[in-house]
Amino acid sequence: MGYREFNIEGRNACIEAFRAGKPIDKIYILDGCQDGVMSTIRREAKKAQTPVKYVSNELLDKMSQTGKHQGVIACVAAYEYHEIDDMLEAAAKKNEPPFLILLDNIEDPHNLGAIIRTANLSGAHGVIIPKDRSCGLTPTVMRTSAGALNYTPVARVTNLVRTMEELKKKGLWFVCADMDGKTMYDMDLTGPIGLVIGNEGEGVGRLVSKNCDMVASIPMKGDIDSLNASVAAGVMAFEIVRQRMKK
Amino acid sequence: MGYREFNIEGRNACIEAFRAGKPIDKIYILDGCQDGVMSTIRREAKKAQTPVKYVSNELLDKMSQTGKHQGVIACVAAYEYHEIDDMLEAAAKKNEPPFLILLDNIEDPHNLGAIIRTANLSGAHGVIIPKDRSCGLTPTVMRTSAGALNYTPVARVTNLVRTMEELKKKGLWFVCADMDGKTMYDMDLTGPIGLVIGNEGEGVGRLVSKNCDMVASIPMKGDIDSLNASVAAGVMAFEIVRQRMKK
Repeated sequence: MGYREFNIEGRNACIEAFRAGKPIDKIYILDGCQDGVMSTIRREAKKAQTPVKYVSNELLDKMSQTGKHQGVIACVAAYEYHEIDDMLEAAAKKNEPPFLILLDNIEDPHNLGAIIRTANLSGAHGVIIPKDRSCGLTPTVMRTSAGALNYTPVARVTNLVRTMEELKKKGLWFVCADMDGKTMYDMDLTGPIGLVIGNEGEGVGRLVSKNCDMVASIPMKGDIDSLNASVAAGVMAFEIVRQRMKK
Repeated sequence: MGYREFNIEGRNACIEAFRAGKPIDKIYILDGCQDGVMSTIRREAKKAQTPVKYVSNELLDKMSQTGKHQGVIACVAAYEYHEIDDMLEAAAKKNEPPFLILLDNIEDPHNLGAIIRTANLSGAHGVIIPKDRSCGLTPTVMRTSAGALNYTPVARVTNLVRTMEELKKKGLWFVCADMDGKTMYDMDLTGPIGLVIGNEGEGVGRLVSKNCDMVASIPMKGDIDSLNASVAAGVMAFEIVRQRMKK
């Protein structure tokens, strides 16, 4: 489980990988190779904004794991998602009340990466993202997470509300950040908790918000509407840390 | 003062603007115009990664403020920097102890924008950046600040350490975030304060750090080294807010 990188080798395999929308990080093509199939691969790479490197046959041979690269090797980044039960188990093992971060459709990979980084450093036991609409675990997320993706488990679920209902049965309380809530400093955030962070533009969805037990607000003193989503997640997560330390 | 946008009209003016490195947001060129000077403008636009829009003569006439666009209009974003004294005055007027955020060479425009957004919402009276090495106020910073750049003043100084020395004479205390510091929750951050945030990779510079009165640490529980710079700024800024509210 976790994040890993692997190669796709050979012409048709690479074309298929592009067409299937696989997250190809980089593609190595034999320098000087100009035929029709290579042009197709280059076109697909351009469409997907994948950087192309032209290299020698020797280098391709050295990189190849199958010995049949046919002049082209694509590097793919892949993440295998975790199970929520494993997160709860990890919390139990550490003898800590569970602390999960749920993301209601974060779209920006920089925000997602920064939040996973925050999750790691605030001691959260995992991050939960929905399958649809949310940003997935792309190489950009991996990079901006500064390695946290190797340590902090991420689970992907079909329906965030249903997941919350199941977790409630296991004793979790859910808190989301919203401007209309009670100030977070006056709230008890020390129990088993799921922190819900909303979408960059729209905030927390109606149904998800309805299923939260508490609505907390970060006290806002300025002129604009809201904090950046990853900053808001950081401020809330470390308020949970503060309260747990004090206890 | 503040952020504003204006047009540069005419062929030579546009070429000069590109060559002077002005932050040109977008350039409008008369559709079908193919002569040598226009190619030069297109080449400069490409170099500067400025998006080019091909438009009709009627539209250029409508956009033009001078009536002499010669087939090309560039949109420039510009920010006029503020003075630190104005920030201190604003704090005095509100009857609040000054709260400034100093950035020791933040390089990523997304981080800079997010920090200015945080400064606005945490009630900081201004942001101070150094002239060299730091990211300037580009259109990306404007966008990621979500409008905060229109409200929160930003000053640019030649030497951050000298600025700190001057501000100390005016009663400010400086705190920077570092892993080796005392936990921020156990520190008194309610007085006149300058919060120093370090560079993304290297943290706070040695000389700047030496000039800080306090080194505060955000309690870290995870496996990786540090939070994203804008998240760290948010967590620290709202700890100051919390302590000031409690007082």
